[in-house]
Amino acid sequence: MALIPILFLIRDQVFKQADGAGPSREFDEVEASGPIVLAGFGRFNQIVGRVLRSKQIPFTALDSAPERVDFVRRFGAKIFYGDPSRIEILRAARVAEARLVIVGVDGVEESVAIVKLIREHYPHVPVFARARDREHAYTLIELGAQVIVRELFHSSLEMAREVMVAVGMPVVNAQRAIERFRDHDEAQLRHQATIRDDDEALRASAVSFAAELERLFNEDAEEDFQLTP
Amino acid sequence: MALIPILFLIRDQVFKQADGAGPSREFDEVEASGPIVLAGFGRFNQIVGRVLRSKQIPFTALDSAPERVDFVRRFGAKIFYGDPSRIEILRAARVAEARLVIVGVDGVEESVAIVKLIREHYPHVPVFARARDREHAYTLIELGAQVIVRELFHSSLEMAREVMVAVGMPVVNAQRAIERFRDHDEAQLRHQATIRDDDEALRASAVSFAAELERLFNEDAEEDFQLTP
Repeated sequence: MALIPILFLIRDQVFKQADGAGPSREFDEVEASGPIVLAGFGRFNQIVGRVLRSKQIPFTALDSAPERVDFVRRFGAKIFYGDPSRIEILRAARVAEARLVIVGVDGVEESVAIVKLIREHYPHVPVFARARDREHAYTLIELGAQVIVRELFHSSLEMAREVMVAVGMPVVNAQRAIERFRDHDEAQLRHQATIRDDDEALRASAVSFAAELERLFNEDAEEDFQLTP
Repeated sequence: MALIPILFLIRDQVFKQADGAGPSREFDEVEASGPIVLAGFGRFNQIVGRVLRSKQIPFTALDSAPERVDFVRRFGAKIFYGDPSRIEILRAARVAEARLVIVGVDGVEESVAIVKLIREHYPHVPVFARARDREHAYTLIELGAQVIVRELFHSSLEMAREVMVAVGMPVVNAQRAIERFRDHDEAQLRHQATIRDDDEALRASAVSFAAELERLFNEDAEEDFQLTP
């Protein structure tokens, strides 16, 4: 139960840095501010871009692969063709005035290079980053990225949800199970990032988080029982 | 609006094939049935396995990488060390009696080989598959996989949700936006799989689905307006 407030704290800090007014601000003020910049426009950021476009939120994309330029133009988005790990490209895309940058490139090294560059030159601009795995996520946390989304994590949870429903778990329970797991695992990730070089502490943390998760799920099981008709 | 029933139809068929009794069946009967088999135990299926374990749902894992065996044993799960695209391995894991198989390997070719093998030898066993991208998903649909989860899709949607909230959209609206986008895109994927070799029809479908999505989002925008205090 102590984990949830930590997560909210992290999220609140992000919102404050991002727009200075918290999450309850009206949505139609978005266009008045600087651009949202998508660094990389491959499989990951294309989906992000399509969602933003659906909600008429403008964005600027940077990508070093020429074959993606036409695709981006079809979106009516600004595209800067070039390597987003070069400072000139970031400058051309007006990252200094960006509302936030989404680093969604495929490779770990390229991702780390871009995040370092933004944090060094534009420390006031929030960085939302795609992570390959836990190790990459730890590095991104250390570098000061505000929001980190592990690239397979949420799709794996969706698969787990589908499987639990298919074997007979009620849809609401399966949904609650993956939400609990997600919040718990993200809190664990944030904690473990602070002790990543301490094997002993990492092991102890894994054990205590596993026990906590089991306790949470046992509470759920009792609720499940009461809810069953 | 016509899209949602199609999705439910697909899902209902899955449930019926998977357990013969629909999604309202009680969850504690799971252990009485055959195993859930995880083909591959890399980044994707490890998360699936951890969720299943949290809910005390037993599973069997197959993986060809020896360094993962210890990791799986820590889960208390059965592990078969071997290439899941070989029929002897599938036989050893009792796929014939499996409740369902989750094909979560990393490579497209290996994934397609495993799904083909299961569909050929065990056509009664539902296949839940991880897809790399749309093209891979089309192939998996053609092969008869029942549930397909694109590996980056749900994480990209999560990133889009975080971004929309950070720029001031109320949390419930951002959540609804990604759910609409997800349902719409999955229906589009199922439809486009049937016309994948017809460029003209694919283009027409992309245009009509984009218009449909815009209409759905415009309806949302009107609701948003009424809901704003």
